[in-house]
Amino acid sequence: MKRIHLQGGTVVNSGSSVVADVLIEDGCVVAIGKNLVVEDAEAIDCAGRYVMPGGVDVHTHLDAPMMNTKTADDFASGTRAAAVGGTTTIVDFALQAKGQKLEDALNGWHQKAIDKCAIDYGFHVAITDLYDGAIADIEGLVRSGVTSMKIYMAYKGAIMLDDGEMYEVLRESGRLGAKTCVHAENGDVIDRISANLVASGKTGPENHALSRPPATEVEAVNRAIAVSRIADAPIYFVHLSTGGATEAVAEAQLNGWPVAGETCTHYLTLGPDLYDLPDFEAAKAVLTPPLRDSNHQEALWRGLNNGTLGIVSSDHCPFCFVGQKDLGRHDFRAIPNGGAGIEDRMRVMYGTGVAGGRISLEQFVALTSTNPAKSFGMFPTKGFVGIGADADIIVLDPAATTHISAATQHQALDYNLWEGWTLPGAITHVFSRGELIASNGRFVGREGHGNYLARSAV
Amino acid sequence: MKRIHLQGGTVVNSGSSVVADVLIEDGCVVAIGKNLVVEDAEAIDCAGRYVMPGGVDVHTHLDAPMMNTKTADDFASGTRAAAVGGTTTIVDFALQAKGQKLEDALNGWHQKAIDKCAIDYGFHVAITDLYDGAIADIEGLVRSGVTSMKIYMAYKGAIMLDDGEMYEVLRESGRLGAKTCVHAENGDVIDRISANLVASGKTGPENHALSRPPATEVEAVNRAIAVSRIADAPIYFVHLSTGGATEAVAEAQLNGWPVAGETCTHYLTLGPDLYDLPDFEAAKAVLTPPLRDSNHQEALWRGLNNGTLGIVSSDHCPFCFVGQKDLGRHDFRAIPNGGAGIEDRMRVMYGTGVAGGRISLEQFVALTSTNPAKSFGMFPTKGFVGIGADADIIVLDPAATTHISAATQHQALDYNLWEGWTLPGAITHVFSRGELIASNGRFVGREGHGNYLARSAV
Amino acid sequence: MKRIHLQGGTVVNSGSSVVADVLIEDGCVVAIGKNLVVEDAEAIDCAGRYVMPGGVDVHTHLDAPMMNTKTADDFASGTRAAAVGGTTTIVDFALQAKGQKLEDALNGWHQKAIDKCAIDYGFHVAITDLYDGAIADIEGLVRSGVTSMKIYMAYKGAIMLDDGEMYEVLRESGRLGAKTCVHAENGDVIDRISANLVASGKTGPENHALSRPPATEVEAVNRAIAVSRIADAPIYFVHLSTGGATEAVAEAQLNGWPVAGETCTHYLTLGPDLYDLPDFEAAKAVLTPPLRDSNHQEALWRGLNNGTLGIVSSDHCPFCFVGQKDLGRHDFRAIPNGGAGIEDRMRVMYGTGVAGGRISLEQFVALTSTNPAKSFGMFPTKGFVGIGADADIIVLDPAATTHISAATQHQALDYNLWEGWTLPGAITHVFSRGELIASNGRFVGREGHGNYLARSAV
Amino acid sequence: MKRIHLQGGTVVNSGSSVVADVLIEDGCVVAIGKNLVVEDAEAIDCAGRYVMPGGVDVHTHLDAPMMNTKTADDFASGTRAAAVGGTTTIVDFALQAKGQKLEDALNGWHQKAIDKCAIDYGFHVAITDLYDGAIADIEGLVRSGVTSMKIYMAYKGAIMLDDGEMYEVLRESGRLGAKTCVHAENGDVIDRISANLVASGKTGPENHALSRPPATEVEAVNRAIAVSRIADAPIYFVHLSTGGATEAVAEAQLNGWPVAGETCTHYLTLGPDLYDLPDFEAAKAVLTPPLRDSNHQEALWRGLNNGTLGIVSSDHCPFCFVGQKDLGRHDFRAIPNGGAGIEDRMRVMYGTGVAGGRISLEQFVALTSTNPAKSFGMFPTKGFVGIGADADIIVLDPAATTHISAATQHQALDYNLWEGWTLPGAITHVFSRGELIASNGRFVGREGHGNYLARSAV
Repeated sequence: MKRIHLQGGTVVNSGSSVVADVLIEDGCVVAIGKNLVVEDAEAIDCAGRYVMPGGVDVHTHLDAPMMNTKTADDFASGTRAAAVGGTTTIVDFALQAKGQKLEDALNGWHQKAIDKCAIDYGFHVAITDLYDGAIADIEGLVRSGVTSMKIYMAYKGAIMLDDGEMYEVLRESGRLGAKTCVHAENGDVIDRISANLVASGKTGPENHALSRPPATEVEAVNRAIAVSRIADAPIYFVHLSTGGATEAVAEAQLNGWPVAGETCTHYLTLGPDLYDLPDFEAAKAVLTPPLRDSNHQEALWRGLNNGTLGIVSSDHCPFCFVGQKDLGRHDFRAIPNGGAGIEDRMRVMYGTGVAGGRISLEQFVALTSTNPAKSFGMFPTKGFVGIGADADIIVLDPAATTHISAATQHQALDYNLWEGWTLPGAITHVFSRGELIASNGRFVGREGHGNYLARSAV
Repeated sequence: MKRIHLQGGTVVNSGSSVVADVLIEDGCVVAIGKNLVVEDAEAIDCAGRYVMPGGVDVHTHLDAPMMNTKTADDFASGTRAAAVGGTTTIVDFALQAKGQKLEDALNGWHQKAIDKCAIDYGFHVAITDLYDGAIADIEGLVRSGVTSMKIYMAYKGAIMLDDGEMYEVLRESGRLGAKTCVHAENGDVIDRISANLVASGKTGPENHALSRPPATEVEAVNRAIAVSRIADAPIYFVHLSTGGATEAVAEAQLNGWPVAGETCTHYLTLGPDLYDLPDFEAAKAVLTPPLRDSNHQEALWRGLNNGTLGIVSSDHCPFCFVGQKDLGRHDFRAIPNGGAGIEDRMRVMYGTGVAGGRISLEQFVALTSTNPAKSFGMFPTKGFVGIGADADIIVLDPAATTHISAATQHQALDYNLWEGWTLPGAITHVFSRGELIASNGRFVGREGHGNYLARSAV
Repeated sequence: MKRIHLQGGTVVNSGSSVVADVLIEDGCVVAIGKNLVVEDAEAIDCAGRYVMPGGVDVHTHLDAPMMNTKTADDFASGTRAAAVGGTTTIVDFALQAKGQKLEDALNGWHQKAIDKCAIDYGFHVAITDLYDGAIADIEGLVRSGVTSMKIYMAYKGAIMLDDGEMYEVLRESGRLGAKTCVHAENGDVIDRISANLVASGKTGPENHALSRPPATEVEAVNRAIAVSRIADAPIYFVHLSTGGATEAVAEAQLNGWPVAGETCTHYLTLGPDLYDLPDFEAAKAVLTPPLRDSNHQEALWRGLNNGTLGIVSSDHCPFCFVGQKDLGRHDFRAIPNGGAGIEDRMRVMYGTGVAGGRISLEQFVALTSTNPAKSFGMFPTKGFVGIGADADIIVLDPAATTHISAATQHQALDYNLWEGWTLPGAITHVFSRGELIASNGRFVGREGHGNYLARSAV
Repeated sequence: MKRIHLQGGTVVNSGSSVVADVLIEDGCVVAIGKNLVVEDAEAIDCAGRYVMPGGVDVHTHLDAPMMNTKTADDFASGTRAAAVGGTTTIVDFALQAKGQKLEDALNGWHQKAIDKCAIDYGFHVAITDLYDGAIADIEGLVRSGVTSMKIYMAYKGAIMLDDGEMYEVLRESGRLGAKTCVHAENGDVIDRISANLVASGKTGPENHALSRPPATEVEAVNRAIAVSRIADAPIYFVHLSTGGATEAVAEAQLNGWPVAGETCTHYLTLGPDLYDLPDFEAAKAVLTPPLRDSNHQEALWRGLNNGTLGIVSSDHCPFCFVGQKDLGRHDFRAIPNGGAGIEDRMRVMYGTGVAGGRISLEQFVALTSTNPAKSFGMFPTKGFVGIGADADIIVLDPAATTHISAATQHQALDYNLWEGWTLPGAITHVFSRGELIASNGRFVGREGHGNYLARSAV
């Protein structure tokens, strides 16, 4: 029986911070107290440090085929990077291929992940082809612990569902207590704007942002909310990037409707100046929706603060600049859409959010760990430093700093969007179920440690 | 030179009512005055009566192939009925067939109308198939006086455009100073709800209303407004039936956006109790959107009063109960969608609106005549009793009454939705360009009197 | 029997413009027509000019004691200036003195005006002291043609009523079909901000604007609307200056509530840069509410265009720079609050609005003449070039220009807020009941021509 | 060193529920853990029970002179009742008398409370007379731990401040990091409506509700928010009773403004049918604002659920039916306004909220304990079962029930608004700083145990 004694840190949960010891036994938290007297335990001095739940990242795309290529991280490299960055749980999107049964899509993703993961993991299933009987097959997913589906309102001809199909997924998921995650952009309008841009010779990566104006997100969010009301089902918006979308979610919540939304690290901290980079480097920031200006950034921070947006995810969807992004060198529409951040999310949110004075420590924990765990059926096992919870714990030293660079990252990527940033705060220890898996930026865990998480319905 | 002297009536325009004589010469109004001294004119005593501009109905479907049949009125019977009902101008929807060029669609409609019409007429073109080059062909339509297009957000596989196509039509029409009329319903969701109803054995006509809940209209209106903003183009919603849609239009107008909307006679005056009729008679009220409850009716009247909705049209789209509506006896989805009203609109709006105390006389003129003429490029030729305007004039006796019945109507239809209603007010004279074409409910005009109206862009 | 024949002008009303002759007989319009054949009439060639209803200015303060002085224009000079500027009707505010009966206040104002006015005039009564029985005395005012009251939400200790008193005035006026005009500013907060500014040594005229931030108007408008709803009575806001107030009025109107508002010439065309004038000259622009920045100006123009604000008045409340404004040289709170504009309103609105492309000719007529006449019980006698209306008519030459300067104005004032402006358009003729009272900037009428207008309740 | 060992209960905080032991030492929580091994402690079996933070009631009026009488509970009886009802902290309103210095008002309240209280207590100061220098005196209050002021927008001539005075209190409190609590009703309008009711012979207690329509609260809330924005200060609304007020607070929060609000037990659970009670018994429910209909109740519950309203207080303001309420037998305006609930709040909220399925257990803790402690500068000492917190803890048995009756209550009152209600759940133990002060509905604490709480500024 392995015991770890975290001594004298400030234990931070989403609703409180107390100076206390934490005792871990058999991978779980078993006691929290003042100056606990513990025998036979490995003692770690946490004085002056924050002891917090490990990150829960509910939006990742590992080993995922997209746009004629595949995301650059598989479950080994991706979860290793997550671990180093302080994230101890992910929920990845299993993407149904055209013609594939939902169960087969899920099984395929299990094969990708098994024996590879450094941390615990769950799956959403992204429904892209509503074959006859697909709706009936959702129940099997939910029974196996996949309690959230995803649908796309963009990318027609590839993975987009129409509004009627979205209605059916919402209705059945709602009936089963499962959540429907929605990529909300008006794909039809975007496809037209994009085609017009290309037709007029505007093929460079900077046109990506022009092709997806804020209104294309806001419209889709409003529409999806309306459809969710007709279907009488909860809805969750992934990667919101605009003030208008945030307001739409807020208005819905005021009506008491089960509408929720996440934003991502990059929408909060990076702006459209990246699209001004020369030499095709703007392609590094070709992710969807695109980066927005500071008005939108401010609106998103305000949305985090007033509770409209409860979750910050990474939307980790990495493509290398060389060999992947350049597929679209002659037509921005062919640039694989996506950015990385599974390793950066916790650091950037602590450094810009907490140290930057925009959110409290407790909000940081809520947004990066507790809320995603609660929203996706993993609390209090995950997202919590409390009695009975998994000892997925990070120790953060507020007096140290973290430097971000592609040269030192664990993400299998040849660039980093926050290249050269030095941020206040450093994560010194990362525990997954009581095992130390990362230490001061080094990975010390192992492939295959991570378990599949069957998640609860609501 | 023919002269008519309307003596001593109350001349009502959208902004004023005065007791005055009106002198008509060569089909136009040439003088208005107190006790005009006129020689060589046919004098008509209008004392105690209202002298008003003839109705302008901008939403009719004559001789139109739809849902495996054709609307019951052609341009002869339809415009005759219009004339008797006090309407002196219509704008009909030329419906593009699949694969047809826009110009050919328009020409086909010209063939249907020419030499048939009792009153002047113009055309919108409903774009249903965005073939390569379709967008470029819009300019030709506008040049020939078709300054408004229509698109459908419902009826996928038949006439619906997707949002990207809608965007293109809006953008080009806006560029040309033309208006885009939109049938706003979320067809994809409606098709799913409808299929689910039929799959569960709910095939009767009363299910039509269940399959198109108010939210399907409100959503589509919000979406189309959003797309119109991206396209930077004006938009006009046909046949709005819900409070939510009215509010959406109002909010847009407050922002200063060029967003407008009409409602129809039946949404203001008929309710969903018609769907309770037995023996398939509910099919008579299968029109789209369906009739709504009194909350929506009140919201629409309020929208007329606060200026949000500026036009009341008939959406005249007649199908006989016997031989047409019964195509859907075993599946409500196959019932031809539409109701009649080209003959009833002015009577019902005067009787329920003015006599019923809901709108003023001047609002009546604005909603049924002046506003549609202004909005669709026909003012001040039409919609106006003023110097230089066409003498399209009705005389209404407020002391008389009008009885509505299928037995006496001029619409080529075997039923009437207002069957048995007796309304205050009777139209005693209808002039088209100075010619008397209807008198006390009798048609006294002639086929072919009506001219095509090339309308202005804005 | 005097007859005037205005030939070939463009006759503009709020809803139409037609090229036509206008025949005036015995002070009224008796015929409008194409090439009228008229004998024994004075013919005036109006070709290429606009023939429009004379201005109706429903917000003036003539011969009014205020802030230890009196407004600089009496009814003689004020109405002469109005006439030259194209305004043919005013409604002035009879201001109740402390302890004075309402009837006596009104009679006092009758004495000021009688035999002095160059144009027709009516009165509102401003209720400033709700003595016992005051509410019961309102009915007498209404019977004598004063169908609108005014109350102030600012200037405590002088003329302000509290919310309970406002409620009583609203309730009784509403019961009688009379309107309540409201000066909406939170006077209590303003007094505190002002006192704090002075206490901290900020005594200059530029502090006037700081002491009355936009929110003090918006709050008061929202409050007054709420109180009007409790009282179930119509409400009319004078001199709105902010976007927020405009939105509040708009939202109320969407609910179908009888809420209306005016703005003034200066809020549309002048900005806060005037408060930067040196040498106490900023005091010239010390009017209430203060001038606002361009965001507010744009919101007001938008409000005019979308129908939220239906009236533009002058709020003519003149105080000379020398001898009056300088009463507050050492404390901005003692500067008499007010600006002039009775002579400038029509010129500035035509020049900036119509010629400036912001409003149509017909909107110009509506905002400056027809709407105020309709709203305050004077239509169709005033505000209309139509059969039976008073021949209060202006002729405007769009090809000429007008220069504004204190040196040439008829207002009894030593400065002009639009000093040095040259505007497109010149009013060449002004008729009051068929008599020419101004011609190309010269007054040719006479004192005492103007009659008192007993106005209708609604 | 006294130690208490709460064994095996479900420890509920605002963000989590875990089965765990709690160890109390020297009045504080020192450890929480699975099966803690503890020596020398009093063990209490909590299996199957909830171990939760004691209630924090931030709105009470004990020993308070009002309306020619005094509230029926003093600090002895009031805090005893609180203790039995599961409340372990109150913040009472020290009410400034006319002419009294703020410091003296506070000292007077200290005298009332000292050596009397069964539980810990703090004070707000209600500012009712803004004497010269009052604003400067606020800082002294804050320094002594009174970090919240209160002002009244009703009761003119007694305790009401005008908007300018409210502005000054907000501004200074905001500057000092203190909160301004606002009683938001438009007193001026209410006084007029009340006087009109009485003048027309409507003097019975049921008229109390008519005299304070929902709009009088909504208006005042909107106004106070506007004034708080001008003052750039946080604002907190006491006893919100309407849907409209809740929406106003929600809209403000969406803007990111520091606006918060509480509602009270009775607004959530009692309706206006109490005003139909015969024989003057309606006077029992004469509290301010009055009880509202179910639409408002639903809106308040929705406000609790979507986070708009974060606190439920009792607004304990008790007056006996005999000898106090009957002061207004002939004029409802003289009925002392107020109801009781210091003893009932926790029971009713658990029974109707948690057991009734309207809120979760964790929300119950948040609303009745954690949030008030956080909002008013007492967290984590109060409102928390966590390491280092005061051991103010209740144990609740969900399988038992509680019966409410005046016959058995500890409130010094001759009636109870929830008379005869039997509610799921019973509080079996109440600890204040580790001492058992109530047990199964019996008071076992002592007068004088309670300490004054100097609260933190924000």
